[in-house]
Amino acid sequence: MEDKCKTGRVTIPTDLDVVPETLEILKKWGADAIRDCDGTDFPQELKNADAKIYSTYYTTRKDNAWAKANPDEVQQCYIMTGFYTAPGDTVTIPLMKGISPELMKVNDHDDITRWWEVMDRSTGQPVPPEQWSYADGSVTVQAVPFHEYTVSFLAYLIWDPVHMYNATTNGWTNFEHQITFDVRQPKTHKYSMERLRKFIAEHPYVNVIRYTTFFHQFTLIFDELKREKFVDWYGYSASVSPYILNQFEQEVGYKFRPEYIIDQGYYNNQYRVPSKEYRDFQAFQRREVAKLAKEMVDITHECGCEAMMFLGDHWIGTEPFMPEFKTIGLDAVVGSVGNGSTLRLISDIEGVKYTEGRFLPYFFPDTFHEGGDPVKEAKENWVTARRAILRKPIDRIGYGGYLKLALQFPEFVDYVESVCNEFRELYENIKGTTPYCVKRVAVLNCWGKMRAWGCHMVHHALYYKQNYSYAGVIEMLSGAPFDVKFISFEDIKNDPHLLDSLDVIINVGDADTAHTGGIWWEDPEISSAIRKFVWNGGGFIGVGEPSGHPYQGHILQLASVLGVEEENGFTLNYDKYNWEEHPNHFILQDADKPIDFGEGKKNIYALEGTEVLVQRNKEVQMAAHDFGKGRAVYISGVPYSFANSRTLYRAILWSAHSEEELHTWFSSNYNVEVHAYVKNGKYCVVNNTYEPQDTIVYTTDGSSFALHLDANEIKWYEI
Amino acid sequence: MEDKCKTGRVTIPTDLDVVPETLEILKKWGADAIRDCDGTDFPQELKNADAKIYSTYYTTRKDNAWAKANPDEVQQCYIMTGFYTAPGDTVTIPLMKGISPELMKVNDHDDITRWWEVMDRSTGQPVPPEQWSYADGSVTVQAVPFHEYTVSFLAYLIWDPVHMYNATTNGWTNFEHQITFDVRQPKTHKYSMERLRKFIAEHPYVNVIRYTTFFHQFTLIFDELKREKFVDWYGYSASVSPYILNQFEQEVGYKFRPEYIIDQGYYNNQYRVPSKEYRDFQAFQRREVAKLAKEMVDITHECGCEAMMFLGDHWIGTEPFMPEFKTIGLDAVVGSVGNGSTLRLISDIEGVKYTEGRFLPYFFPDTFHEGGDPVKEAKENWVTARRAILRKPIDRIGYGGYLKLALQFPEFVDYVESVCNEFRELYENIKGTTPYCVKRVAVLNCWGKMRAWGCHMVHHALYYKQNYSYAGVIEMLSGAPFDVKFISFEDIKNDPHLLDSLDVIINVGDADTAHTGGIWWEDPEISSAIRKFVWNGGGFIGVGEPSGHPYQGHILQLASVLGVEEENGFTLNYDKYNWEEHPNHFILQDADKPIDFGEGKKNIYALEGTEVLVQRNKEVQMAAHDFGKGRAVYISGVPYSFANSRTLYRAILWSAHSEEELHTWFSSNYNVEVHAYVKNGKYCVVNNTYEPQDTIVYTTDGSSFALHLDANEIKWYEI
Repeated sequence: MEDKCKTGRVTIPTDLDVVPETLEILKKWGADAIRDCDGTDFPQELKNADAKIYSTYYTTRKDNAWAKANPDEVQQCYIMTGFYTAPGDTVTIPLMKGISPELMKVNDHDDITRWWEVMDRSTGQPVPPEQWSYADGSVTVQAVPFHEYTVSFLAYLIWDPVHMYNATTNGWTNFEHQITFDVRQPKTHKYSMERLRKFIAEHPYVNVIRYTTFFHQFTLIFDELKREKFVDWYGYSASVSPYILNQFEQEVGYKFRPEYIIDQGYYNNQYRVPSKEYRDFQAFQRREVAKLAKEMVDITHECGCEAMMFLGDHWIGTEPFMPEFKTIGLDAVVGSVGNGSTLRLISDIEGVKYTEGRFLPYFFPDTFHEGGDPVKEAKENWVTARRAILRKPIDRIGYGGYLKLALQFPEFVDYVESVCNEFRELYENIKGTTPYCVKRVAVLNCWGKMRAWGCHMVHHALYYKQNYSYAGVIEMLSGAPFDVKFISFEDIKNDPHLLDSLDVIINVGDADTAHTGGIWWEDPEISSAIRKFVWNGGGFIGVGEPSGHPYQGHILQLASVLGVEEENGFTLNYDKYNWEEHPNHFILQDADKPIDFGEGKKNIYALEGTEVLVQRNKEVQMAAHDFGKGRAVYISGVPYSFANSRTLYRAILWSAHSEEELHTWFSSNYNVEVHAYVKNGKYCVVNNTYEPQDTIVYTTDGSSFALHLDANEIKWYEI
Repeated sequence: MEDKCKTGRVTIPTDLDVVPETLEILKKWGADAIRDCDGTDFPQELKNADAKIYSTYYTTRKDNAWAKANPDEVQQCYIMTGFYTAPGDTVTIPLMKGISPELMKVNDHDDITRWWEVMDRSTGQPVPPEQWSYADGSVTVQAVPFHEYTVSFLAYLIWDPVHMYNATTNGWTNFEHQITFDVRQPKTHKYSMERLRKFIAEHPYVNVIRYTTFFHQFTLIFDELKREKFVDWYGYSASVSPYILNQFEQEVGYKFRPEYIIDQGYYNNQYRVPSKEYRDFQAFQRREVAKLAKEMVDITHECGCEAMMFLGDHWIGTEPFMPEFKTIGLDAVVGSVGNGSTLRLISDIEGVKYTEGRFLPYFFPDTFHEGGDPVKEAKENWVTARRAILRKPIDRIGYGGYLKLALQFPEFVDYVESVCNEFRELYENIKGTTPYCVKRVAVLNCWGKMRAWGCHMVHHALYYKQNYSYAGVIEMLSGAPFDVKFISFEDIKNDPHLLDSLDVIINVGDADTAHTGGIWWEDPEISSAIRKFVWNGGGFIGVGEPSGHPYQGHILQLASVLGVEEENGFTLNYDKYNWEEHPNHFILQDADKPIDFGEGKKNIYALEGTEVLVQRNKEVQMAAHDFGKGRAVYISGVPYSFANSRTLYRAILWSAHSEEELHTWFSSNYNVEVHAYVKNGKYCVVNNTYEPQDTIVYTTDGSSFALHLDANEIKWYEI
């Protein structure tokens, strides 16, 4: 085990200017893989090193000759203009206003009467093509005065959005915009397979083709000032073309409408309760992308390389938790690790030989400059990710950027060495086991496993004021001792016994969003399945506006289960008397300071019989309620913190009637966590903070001992 | 004028124990009317005084002999039980749980299969009567397991709710519960007319019959602990009976359903976008109530008395701004004055000879006890009401309660004397004129004039955390120099030219409530009428979630007009760059401290081109936006204060392009207001605060002068 902990499972970047240093770092960090230098010859010394070599491969760009020769197969995107009020009986709508003309170009090559749609947004109806025309970049509509109109149209992506982002952010000059071409279309399809074979043949030293990624960029739009205008890490709007949409129509048997993609300008983002047509389109795309990606992977294998996919960029259609994904035949997935949730986005992937996490900070000047503190960033990143690794490890870790920059920070180089060693140690200790799980918990929303761990992400792990209070739940779960599932409302309809395999259901988010379910709650099969589950003894945790959808006398459809309701005025006539707090409740017993509910929720009140745990200014923030043999907990928001993580942990246990299981593999100090790997006969105690911590560690059968841990320390024990 | 200012226009209460003092007070306050002593003989000395005598008259109670002899004509109420989940294939629902059995009794006398309704709230469908039965106070339903059920049923009001409230609040003992009988029903109708004639004949000294009120109590329910459970000052739920509902069915020509009144348990309260059936029912009730009330008023007149109506209690169906009201033929309306809005609820009534406001504090022990400060309460009440009186005066003021208590506070007696004199003075100065109005402003909601001035009231002027930030707008308008209308969406459809008569439209409240319009915004006639109005130069003020209703790409349907939108997650993918504040905007130029937005609104962001006036933590609280030739202002909330009143005043002027009209009949200090009565050649400057104030007074043509005012002072000038 000693050796295993000193070598392997680590990937490093390199550069032409740091060849000897690369070899030193390879040894010091125990790395066994090197990422190639983009666009240059790979140094002979490194080819000879005892390490795998990864080569980034772009399927859809870096070949402008081809793109320019085949403008009809350049990638396309559906775009909606802004809203225009008709001041008279016509209105003229400039299509590209607000969109960078360097990024996109209107596609008037294909039949615009078929592929565009002018919408009367005052009526929700499309305007017949006879009533509008296109000229000089604008659509002119024969309008009803003072109705509002939008135009949905197709545009070519004449500059790859990620290339544009990199170029703009880093201030590149003197370079050519990389045009994206569409591998799905016939000429480019054929060409791309040959191009891949050629690439591998020309790079015989490469062991791993690292696809970045396959065919369709997530939605990423820039405005005339080249500022980001719209980003959806899961967005499908840039995966369209008449060629693809014709196939889609044939498959589903109904007529395609641009509105299926445009979705009122919301582009079917994560918050939208997905329409049938959008789900059909996603399923179609996943199958088609998988089929074509498999072709590339097969070629890769045939040519003697491994195929690795980058989880991001042109990854649309490759959702790795969906069944099609496994059929691609990939060897590995690599992704960026921003926190515990993004770690598990990678580590939970099945059907590949290994997974790899790219850790922060990147070796870029924003961190690696005089006065910068890369060790601090690395520690935060590692400790945050480690919680999730201890539940479900990735198989490898790696770093990216300019190695030369990192070398200027010897303390950082030493710290990463310790991370690599710690990673290898814990990987050895936990591999092949399922860690001890206290409860089986499912997050219920409209997306289910398709968005597992990513269900509150807008742009990967970025913070949004409107979502951190909900994403905190997912982050907490990423490192908690639960068997976590992500289920959809459709799953419940498809499998009546699904809920039997669960202890606790969590519903988290705002009313009338895909996160909480919206109109799904009007389906009595759904509402009664959940009521039955809780009534018969199940636990339910609702965060924010769980089951929020005004219908038949409730704003929160599970008001009777949760014991709380939201005041939107409809019940202002009802007197509310239940405001007394119960600060000694089991759930609150580790809360040593006022709980941080993040953005919280206004206007929540408790029904009779509910135990209010926290209310502020007569707005309930947390409440507990019995429903039949089951229990429900309401929480207004759960931004991620160690304290909140503990509170949510207790809430889950309480809701599952499992208070007595608290002192099993448990730390009295919530800054410290305990994970047990029973099959491997090991457990660890881990300090998640940057300060020393003292705690009582509880193992099993009531045994416990006091322990002091250094900052960030992890201690391993035999059971 | 001297004399006019010393006598008249004031009503006082009396009691048997203060007869000489009553005569003294009559003289000191210049009162010319006395309210009788409830339930006792009226003293001869007072009969001889030079004052009108009012006698309170209860049409629906204080005659238990009749009520008990005619139990089938006791008043009834529609009630919905709580929500019950079926744990198996039956569920048993106790009807009276949560309701005081002293207040109500289940009506199982009438055909329950016709008049009750069991609702499956999971499906929104009624359960056929064959599938439920009633026994022992409970309904047992043949259920779908884990669906949720409610029962809507009729109950007799066996204790008048106001009598119950008075008895419970004052701890009465040894008295009989007054049962309410229904004057609308045939036997009681006939009897009530005879009873009224008899009453007047037996009280020959009475000049004014003060009806409290007519036939139907607003909805007021108490629970088993006799606590208030539900209150709706405008609620129609207690105005029903099979007798009445049969008539209703015949009139409207469709079948009545209990759900029309029950409304999912919301009872069609003020926040609910009213259904067609509810509006039909209200219209029917107004006509029937007016018809019957007219019978009583005619008798009153025939017997030589005036008929005065109390605005409250059993006032359902008498909405005084609706056309039916005038047909009743009342001489007067009296109501309680809690603030400026409630003052104008009374003073704006047309079709009566005079209106009277009952001022606070009542002479009750809660204020008039050792250590109490009735002068302070009286000052607050008077100064608040005075703002509104200066726009539209009531014709009389009055006080209520135990005169003996007031007499123990000589300072209070002196203060009221000054109020009476001040009231008479200002009444003389402004009577018969319309004060100078800067702009024509309309509040747009689903209720229009039916709820004019009361559109944000739940229980008269009571504070609610969820409405004070909106009610503040109405309170501000009640004393502001605008010609104020209350219009409904239906009014816009019925009269295409309605908006031509307006300068500014105000829409204030939460999304998907009757206050902002909800589904009305899906009607393109409505949305385009408003867009046209603003585009062509009109002003629009939106407060809270104006035009809030998710539809066709907007949460706020007038987002393009207002220049702001609400982030509910659907647009989280869009980058928002417009956060820079414009603190020097015209609207903010009198804001000398951070604006109080009350509850405000979360998640509002500005669109491009909008001027953000105030944002806090990247949530826009106030913004200004040009739309065509018009202008819109967004404000997150406007709790009433002098400072906010000024800000809203400026917002209205700015939205109407009338910045140059600011310095007309204007005070530089926002604690002071100026009102001009051009026709009478007078204007006044009034200090609304309890401290002295200095200001610059602007009259017309740029003239101005500096002025010092004592606390509360009002100064009159000739023009």
